[in-house]
Amino acid sequence: MKEAVIGIDIGGTYTKYGIVDRKGNCFADSFISTEAYKDFDDYLKHLHDEIEGTLKEIPGEVTLQGVGIGAPNGNYYKGTIEYPPNLNWKGIIPVVKKIKAYYPGVPVVLTNDANAAAIGEMVYGGARKMKDFIVITLGTGLGSGIVVNGQLVYGHDGFAGELGHVNVKLRGRDCGCGRKGCLETYVSANGIRRTVFRFLAERTIESELRSISFNDLTAKMITEAAQRGDLIAREAFEYTGRILGAKLADTVAHTSPEAIFLLGGLANAKELILEPTLRSMEENLLPIFRNKVKVLLSALSDVNAGVMGASALAWKELGEDSEQ
Amino acid sequence: MKEAVIGIDIGGTYTKYGIVDRKGNCFADSFISTEAYKDFDDYLKHLHDEIEGTLKEIPGEVTLQGVGIGAPNGNYYKGTIEYPPNLNWKGIIPVVKKIKAYYPGVPVVLTNDANAAAIGEMVYGGARKMKDFIVITLGTGLGSGIVVNGQLVYGHDGFAGELGHVNVKLRGRDCGCGRKGCLETYVSANGIRRTVFRFLAERTIESELRSISFNDLTAKMITEAAQRGDLIAREAFEYTGRILGAKLADTVAHTSPEAIFLLGGLANAKELILEPTLRSMEENLLPIFRNKVKVLLSALSDVNAGVMGASALAWKELGEDSEQ
Repeated sequence: MKEAVIGIDIGGTYTKYGIVDRKGNCFADSFISTEAYKDFDDYLKHLHDEIEGTLKEIPGEVTLQGVGIGAPNGNYYKGTIEYPPNLNWKGIIPVVKKIKAYYPGVPVVLTNDANAAAIGEMVYGGARKMKDFIVITLGTGLGSGIVVNGQLVYGHDGFAGELGHVNVKLRGRDCGCGRKGCLETYVSANGIRRTVFRFLAERTIESELRSISFNDLTAKMITEAAQRGDLIAREAFEYTGRILGAKLADTVAHTSPEAIFLLGGLANAKELILEPTLRSMEENLLPIFRNKVKVLLSALSDVNAGVMGASALAWKELGEDSEQ
Repeated sequence: MKEAVIGIDIGGTYTKYGIVDRKGNCFADSFISTEAYKDFDDYLKHLHDEIEGTLKEIPGEVTLQGVGIGAPNGNYYKGTIEYPPNLNWKGIIPVVKKIKAYYPGVPVVLTNDANAAAIGEMVYGGARKMKDFIVITLGTGLGSGIVVNGQLVYGHDGFAGELGHVNVKLRGRDCGCGRKGCLETYVSANGIRRTVFRFLAERTIESELRSISFNDLTAKMITEAAQRGDLIAREAFEYTGRILGAKLADTVAHTSPEAIFLLGGLANAKELILEPTLRSMEENLLPIFRNKVKVLLSALSDVNAGVMGASALAWKELGEDSEQ
C-alpha cells in the first residue's frame, strides 16, 4: 500500500498534476489544458476524470492522504483563487470547496504558486535544513514565497510575498497590476524581453536579437544569445541581475534569510542571472548582512517544481505527527 | 509576593530600566547615563547597583523571574551588542553573558530596541490580538520590528527588521551606515531635519525655522511649527510621510501585516505624519492590499516603551506555560 497526495499546479496554459509520496517520489504525473475551459466546473470535472485515470495506472493500492494545489492568486486561508489576471475564470473561485466535493475526507489545501514552490524547496529541495529562506520564481512574472522560522509567511490576509510588485522606479514600466515600475516589469521572462528591446533601441551594436519581433522573443532565445556572446543579450542579463540584486538587498533587510533560491524560466540562464544578482545584492546590502546570504538555483526541476510544491504543501498540512 | 522581571532599555544617552509584572504594571523605574561610561564593565556594575537600590524601594517581596534588554544592534541569538555606532563600547559586547553573572538562575534575553518595542506592542500595547504587524520606531534613526504569525522575525542571523536601511534613492542622502539613500536618512527625527533644511534652501517662503541652526533644530520644533501652520514644516511632514508610505507599501508586499504602528519622536506629531503616510501607502499598494492595512500610533507611551518592550521580551521568553 502506498500513501500519496495529489499535487496540482494550476498555470495559465496547463494544469500539471502528480501523485507523490512523502519522500517526494512521484508515482505518476500528467497534465490537462487550463485555458481550454471557460467554466471552472467543467475544468474541474475533466481534471478529476484525468486524475482518476492516472491513479488507476499506478501498480498496487494508493491511499490518498490529501490534495495540495498551487495556483496564481491562490489564498491559503480562504482556499480561493481571487481575481486571477491570467486565467479564464473571473472573480473569486472557491477552489478548495469544489475540490473537496471530489475528495471528501482528506485535507485539501491551496496557496499561490510561488508559495507552493517555497514549500517544495523546504520539503524536497535545497532548503531542507533552512528555517529562513526565500524562493523567487522568474516566469512570465515574478513570484515569491518567504519562509521565516520554518513557516511560510502568509500575512494577515493570506496574500503575503508579492515581491514582484515592489517598486523599482516611480514612473517606470507599465505593470499588469495597473501600476508602474513594479519589479516584475524588469525582472521576469517578460521583463528581460522589454529590457532587450530597450537596449536594441538605445545601442547601435549588432545583435542576433535584432531580427526577432517582440512577440516572438523568449527568455530562452535571450539566454542562448547571451551564451553565444551576444552583447545586447549579455547587457540585458547584467541589467536584470543588477535590479534584482538591489531589491533583494531590501528584502534581506526585512527577513534576513539564509538563502534566496531562483526558479523558473530566467533561472535556467544560471550564472548569467546569478552572478550579477549576487554582485548587486552584496553592493547594496547593509554591512551586517554582507557575505552571509546565499543566492542559489532551486534544487527542484523547473519541469515539475509546481507539482512538487503543491504535493509538499499537502504533506506539510498533514503535519509532522503523521510522519512514519 | 510579587513576580517581576527587569526591563532594561539601553539608549545612546540614557539607560532606562523598570521592574515590571506580567500584566505590565511597573512597580518602579529609573535610569542611569549610558554615555558617561567608557567601559562596559564599569557601566554594568553601576547599573546593577542602581537596580538593587530600586528593588529595595518596592514594598513587599519581589521574586525576580528574568531580565529583558533592548539595545541598539542587539542580537537575540547571540545575546550580544555588535558594532553599535552610537555607543562608547566597540566591537562585540557579550551583554547577556555579563548580565547573567549578576542574575544567575533566571533567563536573560536581549534583542534590538525596535524588536523589543514590537514585543511590547504585542504583549501590552495595540497589537494584543494581532498575529501579523510591524512596529516602526522613528527616533534619531528608523528602527523596525516585524511580527509574522505571532513571532518576531529575527532571520537566520538575528538581525532581521532593518527597514531603516532599505533604499529610497540610488544616490541619495549620506547614511551613517556608510551607504546612500537609506530610508532613515529621510524618515526619522534626523531625516525630517535634513528635509526642512532642503526646503529652506529651495523655497523663498517665510518660516520660523529660518532662525534655527541645523544643530539646534529638533523634530519637536518642526512638529510645533507645523502645528502653528508653518508651511516649510508642513511640507517637510508631507514629504516624510510620502516617502514612508511608499516604502511601507513595499513592506506590505513582503509580509502583509494587519497594522503598522508608529512610535517615537516623529510619531508624536500624530496626524501630521500619520495622514500623509497612510495616503501614500494606499496610493502605492498593490490593489489586493488596499484598504486593509491600518497605520496606527503605538499604544505604548513613548516615555517607557523601551522598558515595557524589554520587560515583555523577558515575559515572552518565560513562555505561556508559566502563566498563572
